[in-house]
Amino acid sequence: MIGWEDVYKVVVAMVPLYVALILGYGSVKWWRVFTPEQCEAINRFVCFFTLPLFTFEFTAHVDPFKMNYLFIGADAISKFIIVVVLALWAKCSSKGSYCWSITSFSLSTLTNALVVGVPLMKAMYGPMGVDLVVQSSVVQAIIWLTFLLFVLEFRRTGTDFSESTRAVGDSQVISVEAGAAGKDLEGNEAINVASPSTRGPSFWSLMKMVWLKLAMNPNSYACMVGLTWAFIANRWHFKMPSIMEESILIMSKAGTGTAMFSMGLFMALQEKVIACGTSLTVFGMVLRFIAGPAAMAIGAIAVGLHDDVLRVAIIQAALPQSITSFIFAKEYGLHADVLSTAVIFGMIVSLPLLVAYYAILEFLH
Amino acid sequence: MIGWEDVYKVVVAMVPLYVALILGYGSVKWWRVFTPEQCEAINRFVCFFTLPLFTFEFTAHVDPFKMNYLFIGADAISKFIIVVVLALWAKCSSKGSYCWSITSFSLSTLTNALVVGVPLMKAMYGPMGVDLVVQSSVVQAIIWLTFLLFVLEFRRTGTDFSESTRAVGDSQVISVEAGAAGKDLEGNEAINVASPSTRGPSFWSLMKMVWLKLAMNPNSYACMVGLTWAFIANRWHFKMPSIMEESILIMSKAGTGTAMFSMGLFMALQEKVIACGTSLTVFGMVLRFIAGPAAMAIGAIAVGLHDDVLRVAIIQAALPQSITSFIFAKEYGLHADVLSTAVIFGMIVSLPLLVAYYAILEFLH
Repeated sequence: MIGWEDVYKVVVAMVPLYVALILGYGSVKWWRVFTPEQCEAINRFVCFFTLPLFTFEFTAHVDPFKMNYLFIGADAISKFIIVVVLALWAKCSSKGSYCWSITSFSLSTLTNALVVGVPLMKAMYGPMGVDLVVQSSVVQAIIWLTFLLFVLEFRRTGTDFSESTRAVGDSQVISVEAGAAGKDLEGNEAINVASPSTRGPSFWSLMKMVWLKLAMNPNSYACMVGLTWAFIANRWHFKMPSIMEESILIMSKAGTGTAMFSMGLFMALQEKVIACGTSLTVFGMVLRFIAGPAAMAIGAIAVGLHDDVLRVAIIQAALPQSITSFIFAKEYGLHADVLSTAVIFGMIVSLPLLVAYYAILEFLH
Repeated sequence: MIGWEDVYKVVVAMVPLYVALILGYGSVKWWRVFTPEQCEAINRFVCFFTLPLFTFEFTAHVDPFKMNYLFIGADAISKFIIVVVLALWAKCSSKGSYCWSITSFSLSTLTNALVVGVPLMKAMYGPMGVDLVVQSSVVQAIIWLTFLLFVLEFRRTGTDFSESTRAVGDSQVISVEAGAAGKDLEGNEAINVASPSTRGPSFWSLMKMVWLKLAMNPNSYACMVGLTWAFIANRWHFKMPSIMEESILIMSKAGTGTAMFSMGLFMALQEKVIACGTSLTVFGMVLRFIAGPAAMAIGAIAVGLHDDVLRVAIIQAALPQSITSFIFAKEYGLHADVLSTAVIFGMIVSLPLLVAYYAILEFLH
C-alpha cells in the first residue's frame, strides 16, 4: 500500500513543474514581461539549447546493451495495437479518416517522457523508473517520431506507395496505413492504387525527407548523438570526462525549468486554453490518459511484465502529451488545435490523474 | 601543496561557465539564432526569473546567526581602505574625480560572487568556501550595492549634503565622499558647501530613492527576501518545505547557465570586446585582480584570518567583475564602457588568474 507520504513525494515532484509553467504564463498574461516576439526568443532558447542538451544528458547515460527489451517489446506491442485499431476504424467506420488516425496515434502514444516523466518516475519508483522512462523516450524519439513524421509526409505528398513498400518487407503496417490514406484522399483512391510508381516519391525518398527533418530537429539530433555516445561509451567501457559532463549539465540542468516556462508562455499566447471545443478535448484526454495506458497494459501483460516494471510501463504511457507531437501537427497543418489543447489541458489535469494511477496500480499483483 | 588534480578540479568548475558563455556568444555571432530584440528577452528572463531565484536559493540558506563575522569584518576593512584611498586620490591628485572614484570603487570591490564564485569556491575549498562566498555576496548586495547606488544618486542630484549627513552620525565616509564630489562638480564647489540645505534632497530622501531602486531590482529584492527568510527560519529553527525548495530549485538551477549564456549574448552585441581602449582596460584589470585582493589581504590579515579562510577571502576578492555594477553604470551613464569591458574581458582572463592565485596562496602559512 502507498501512504500519504508517497503521494506527497509525487506532488513534490510535480508541483515545481506547475510553478515554472505558471511563472511563464504569468510573465505574459499578468506581468507583461515579454512581448510575443520575445516569447519566441525564449522558445528558441529552449528548442536550440536547454532541451537538446537535456535530452542528450539523459540519452548519453542509457546503456544500450542493458535495455529492458521486454519493456520495449511491450511498448511496441501497445503501439501496434493502436495502429491496427486506428487503421480498422479508418477503413470500416464512416467517421474514420487517415488524418484523424494520425492525430489519434499522436494522442494515444506520444508522451512528454523526459521533462515530466523523469521527475515523476523518480518520485514514484526511484532510479529503476527513471531508467525505463528514459529508454521509452529514446525509442519514442528514434522510432515513433520517425514513424509519425513518415505518415505526415506521406499525407502531404498524397502518395500511395503500397506497392513499393511491400517490396521492402514492411508491408503490414504500411499497407494498412495506405488503406487508410485511400479514405482520406477520397476521389483519388482509384488513381492512387492504379499508378503507384508514377505519382510521386517512393518509400525511400519519403524516408530521406523524414530523416532530413529529424536531423534538423535539435532534439532528435541530440537523441541520436546521445545514443551514439552511449553505444561507444558502453562498448569500450569509458566514462564521459567530468569537464564535458559538467559543461553539458550547466545548460541541461536548465532544461526542465525552461521547458515548462516556455510551455507557460505558449499557453498564455493561446486565445483560449481549450482551442478545439469540448468534445474534441474529451476525445484527446480519453486517448491520452485511458486508451494509451490501456494498450500499454495489454502489451505489458502480454510480454509478462509484472510488479513495478508493469506499473512504470502503464504510468509512463499516461504522461502528458508530447510537445513535439504538437510542433509537428502545427508544421503539417494537421489538427494543431487539438494537439495544443491536449498538451496544455493534459498538463493541467495530469497531476491528479497520475496520482490516481499510482494509487490504483498499487493494488496490482 | 596543490597538485595537478586540484588545478584540474578548478578548471572543471570554470570551463562549463565558459561553454555557456560561448554558446550565448555563438548563438548571435555565428549561428544567428537571436535578433538583438530577442537577446533582450533572454536577458529579461535571466534578470526577472532565473537569477533572482538563484540568489534567493543561496541567500535563504545562509545562517545569519552563524556568519563568519571576522571574514565580514575583513571585507569591510578592505572596502574602507579602498574608499579612503580613492577619496584621497580624488582630493589630492589633479587627475582624481568623484566620478572616477565611483567607478574605481566598483572595479576594485564588486564581484560576481554567486555565478562564478560558488562553483569556483566549491572546487577549491569545498562547502566552507561556498559558505563564505555566499556570505560575501549577501553583504555586497545589502550594503555595498546600496552604497554604490547612493553615491551614484548623489552624483546625479549634484548635491552636497555633508552638513545633513554629519547629523546622522555617518560622517567619516560620507564627508570624504562629499569632498571628492567637490572636485567633480568643479565650479559649484563653493556653492555646494555654502548652502547644503537649500540645494536638493537630503540624505534621507536620497536614501529613499536608493531603497526604491533596490526594491525594484529583482536581484536585490531576492536577496532581501532570502535573508529575511534565513533570519526567520534560523531563529525559529524550521526548514523550508521540500515542495517550496523544489519549486525554487527548478528555476534557480537554470541560474548559472542562463546567466553566463546571457553574458555571452551581451558580449556578442558589443561592437568590440574592449570598448574603452587599452589603458582603461588595464586600469580596470589592475583594480579588479590586484588592488581588490590586495586590500582584502590587508583587511584579512588585520583581523587575524589565516589558512583556508584567508585564502578564500583573497580569492573571492579576485573574482570577475559584478554584472550589477555594469548595469548601474549604464543606468547612471557613468563609464559604462569601462565596466562592460571589465565584465567581459575580466571574465575571459579570470580563469588563469584565479588558478594562479589558488596555486600561489598555497604557499601562505
